[in-house]
Amino acid sequence: MTIVITAFERSPDGGKGLARDTRVRWALEEVGLPYEVRLVSFEAKKEQPHLGLHPFGLIPTYEEGDLVLFESGAIVLHIAENHLGLLPEDPGARARAITWMFAALSTVEPPILEIVIVRFAEGDKPWSEERLELVKDRIRDRLAQLSDRLGDAEWLDGEFSAGDLMMVSVLLRSRPSGLLDEFPNLAAYAARGEARPAYRRAFAAQLAINAPDRVSD
Amino acid sequence: MTIVITAFERSPDGGKGLARDTRVRWALEEVGLPYEVRLVSFEAKKEQPHLGLHPFGLIPTYEEGDLVLFESGAIVLHIAENHLGLLPEDPGARARAITWMFAALSTVEPPILEIVIVRFAEGDKPWSEERLELVKDRIRDRLAQLSDRLGDAEWLDGEFSAGDLMMVSVLLRSRPSGLLDEFPNLAAYAARGEARPAYRRAFAAQLAINAPDRVSD
Repeated sequence: MTIVITAFERSPDGGKGLARDTRVRWALEEVGLPYEVRLVSFEAKKEQPHLGLHPFGLIPTYEEGDLVLFESGAIVLHIAENHLGLLPEDPGARARAITWMFAALSTVEPPILEIVIVRFAEGDKPWSEERLELVKDRIRDRLAQLSDRLGDAEWLDGEFSAGDLMMVSVLLRSRPSGLLDEFPNLAAYAARGEARPAYRRAFAAQLAINAPDRVSD
Repeated sequence: MTIVITAFERSPDGGKGLARDTRVRWALEEVGLPYEVRLVSFEAKKEQPHLGLHPFGLIPTYEEGDLVLFESGAIVLHIAENHLGLLPEDPGARARAITWMFAALSTVEPPILEIVIVRFAEGDKPWSEERLELVKDRIRDRLAQLSDRLGDAEWLDGEFSAGDLMMVSVLLRSRPSGLLDEFPNLAAYAARGEARPAYRRAFAAQLAINAPDRVSD
């Protein structure tokens, strides 16, 4: 059954791989599933027919025959539950890996995304500069806690899992602001994720769409 | 095996049931599992031994023998996967119910929680009042999309599921600001969740801790 995902026609990050389709591409590459991509413009994502797939007008979506899913977390979990390679077999370890997926999306990512609000949605407001520092401090608090828990481990809980895939994806969004590099063990952890062949294939695939002039062989 | 969750010694909402232990209590009540509660103070949650259970110093946590989980989304999913009543049997419907859990936590809740930032973390800042209106408009955008999708359906996708449990829990956090009541179908949907016997038991259990003087028979 052909898997079809959606991605931006042109991602606002210009090919840094930070849009959420990269997470789904990465998961599909880890388990070795082929997929097709349908590109959606910024205007079209807020209209039908895309809104029928994604009620909040975002990307990615995931179609597999009659099944339609949205939310990168749900899509990655669906892939991980149905194919080997992203979740441990032991039930306890599996529940903990899923815990890290939720932690990435519910606890670590929201403060990181506040930077987008400060810089873009409220970039013209008089408080923008002063607020940026407050937002950065809240991100630092979260990253410091994560850094303490990771310590010098390679991955968050034993072998690489969908929890690491999601946490690395979220952490990469804190790199352009310089915050990730303030925590050397987190920066090294994210770099280990990026070094995985599956990530590299996913990154290259989104780069070919978003910055085709920057794609090398 | 005894299940032990953690909750605030005294919730900042004074017993409105908006702290995240209520979601876990609700899920446990829906599937009929008994549980014990260990109370944690605002100071103790950021120190050992609690940090050993929850790396971000939050509640709730979940202990079941040797298994330790955190993140209300992961805990509710763990309960739903191991007991009947919160996820459909059909694999596609099950994946869609899980999608709504992630949508609640990753897409609907973050803008709603911004109100806490505006009112408390930045309540003394000169931009607080003007920003509150911007934040409310972003919440309205999300609630309008959700309202369109729900329409006049009883639940988000067929029977009541863990996706509805999480979405109702998140929506209730938008009620004190008056925003939920701007969308009558969402307000009625949340009220249907609150009317479930399992929710009522969960709510009463947290109220007995947080506002013992307000508990009636």
